[in-house]
Amino acid sequence: MSMPADFRAWMQDVQARTEDALGRFLPPAGAAPAKLHEAMRYTTLGGGKRVRPLLAHAAGELFGADPAAVAHAACAVEMIHVYSLVHDDMPCMDDDALRRGKPTVHVAYDEATALLAGDALQAQAFEVLANAPGVAPARQVAMLRLLAEAAGTKGMCGGQAIDLDSVGLSLTLEQLERMHQLKTGAMLRVSVLLGALAGRDLAPHELEALAAYSRAIGLAFQVVDDVLDATEDSATLGKTAGKDAAANKPTYVSILGLEPSKALAEQLRRQAHEALAPFGEQALRLRELADLIVQRKA
Amino acid sequence: MSMPADFRAWMQDVQARTEDALGRFLPPAGAAPAKLHEAMRYTTLGGGKRVRPLLAHAAGELFGADPAAVAHAACAVEMIHVYSLVHDDMPCMDDDALRRGKPTVHVAYDEATALLAGDALQAQAFEVLANAPGVAPARQVAMLRLLAEAAGTKGMCGGQAIDLDSVGLSLTLEQLERMHQLKTGAMLRVSVLLGALAGRDLAPHELEALAAYSRAIGLAFQVVDDVLDATEDSATLGKTAGKDAAANKPTYVSILGLEPSKALAEQLRRQAHEALAPFGEQALRLRELADLIVQRKA
Repeated sequence: MSMPADFRAWMQDVQARTEDALGRFLPPAGAAPAKLHEAMRYTTLGGGKRVRPLLAHAAGELFGADPAAVAHAACAVEMIHVYSLVHDDMPCMDDDALRRGKPTVHVAYDEATALLAGDALQAQAFEVLANAPGVAPARQVAMLRLLAEAAGTKGMCGGQAIDLDSVGLSLTLEQLERMHQLKTGAMLRVSVLLGALAGRDLAPHELEALAAYSRAIGLAFQVVDDVLDATEDSATLGKTAGKDAAANKPTYVSILGLEPSKALAEQLRRQAHEALAPFGEQALRLRELADLIVQRKA
Repeated sequence: MSMPADFRAWMQDVQARTEDALGRFLPPAGAAPAKLHEAMRYTTLGGGKRVRPLLAHAAGELFGADPAAVAHAACAVEMIHVYSLVHDDMPCMDDDALRRGKPTVHVAYDEATALLAGDALQAQAFEVLANAPGVAPARQVAMLRLLAEAAGTKGMCGGQAIDLDSVGLSLTLEQLERMHQLKTGAMLRVSVLLGALAGRDLAPHELEALAAYSRAIGLAFQVVDDVLDATEDSATLGKTAGKDAAANKPTYVSILGLEPSKALAEQLRRQAHEALAPFGEQALRLRELADLIVQRKA
């Protein structure tokens, strides 16, 4: 995809800072229990597009947040995301051997270690957010509550459960959208929100605009995932391609078809841009991230 | 065991209030995703000694905490405890079919549901604690941080990882103690601490006394677990007896022998009582809970 040079530089800077912060916030590899710590670092570091940290930092910059506080929010959402991938890849779930181009944790280590590493990463996420510096305590409690809601049955876990239950069923578009708004959307939305809340107080209309933006990119993210799953190979994606179709899971492509799915993604990208109108030029990074989410190739 | 009538009545009252609060704090069984919600309620409600909620309420009463706030802390620690049991029972860990006298979650439902229900219960625990009413926000952030530390690699998950790594090894008594202080002790300690922190400000010497008490009962709890595992049958315990010996895991009984283990438990009970001396008669419930932990038969 074409990408403005300054956006690419900003993105690479945030990714590098996120990698560094994750390395500091994770338990040290050498300390006991070494295998657990190694597995947590193996699966969290050195890969990933860091979409959620990018969203958190873009929103944080828009509302004048201290980057050090945003780093905690960004790493917290990334740790929740990574733990969900580790558990999702386990044999009792998707049984996947490849993630981000590397063997999955239960393959590189063992199933028990994958289970524990995921569990520990979830706890670590809340610890990292609770340690965010310079955030007013009442605001910080609200942020911790929002992260818990986004990670739990009202969000990611709930969406995964609906996903499990929907194998072999023919979902309506509305049911598919609801599933993804929970499974993927909730954590993308809370990434934007936590970055924003690390900054200045938000007016209700600003929160509404952010919510509309987040809803659009959350859905777009999944539509594009389904398109890529149907059109790209495993080497390009760094994970097993075509597995949703193989597992008889409903996808945007299976319900709408390929071209209408691409058109929907583009429509959602425009919606995301429109939602940001009240913020003017200041919201450039969030607009560019909407473009990135829709135009990515992996 | 002999138990003062008023302690028994207090305990039953706390257990009933905990059951009621857990029922309100868990997602409703009827709402989607129904299977996930049912599994969370199945494994959390209707069983368990509620040792951690009892500790939280006893400490809360000692420091004048609002019982409504303590209920949130108590349910949060219980949810973390329950999620750890669900994951611990899975085939890739202890592979256990029986818990609290009922089929384990992966047996009653399936492995994927057990994995997700555990994950969702951990998130729910942080949500419940973040919703505790009437706690000063700075205090609440500290409580959330302590819960995360106790649940993660510095606590429960770390202890479980050491436990996994120690199968077939001959641990020293010090190594065994360190493992259990993390695996079981950290959550017992934080139960006392969160109950206390829901109340008035604590002086450093009061925090130290609580820490000494918590260390003693945390260790006593595990020593007694090992004694019961070696001496009671599965029906009495409501879980599979003798499995540590069968799995070639080091226990207090395997290292010290049965009678010295019983003597150690009694010594720890006395240490717990002594630690509470600064609080005088007000700490009656915490003393009685130390007695309960050491003298229980299941």
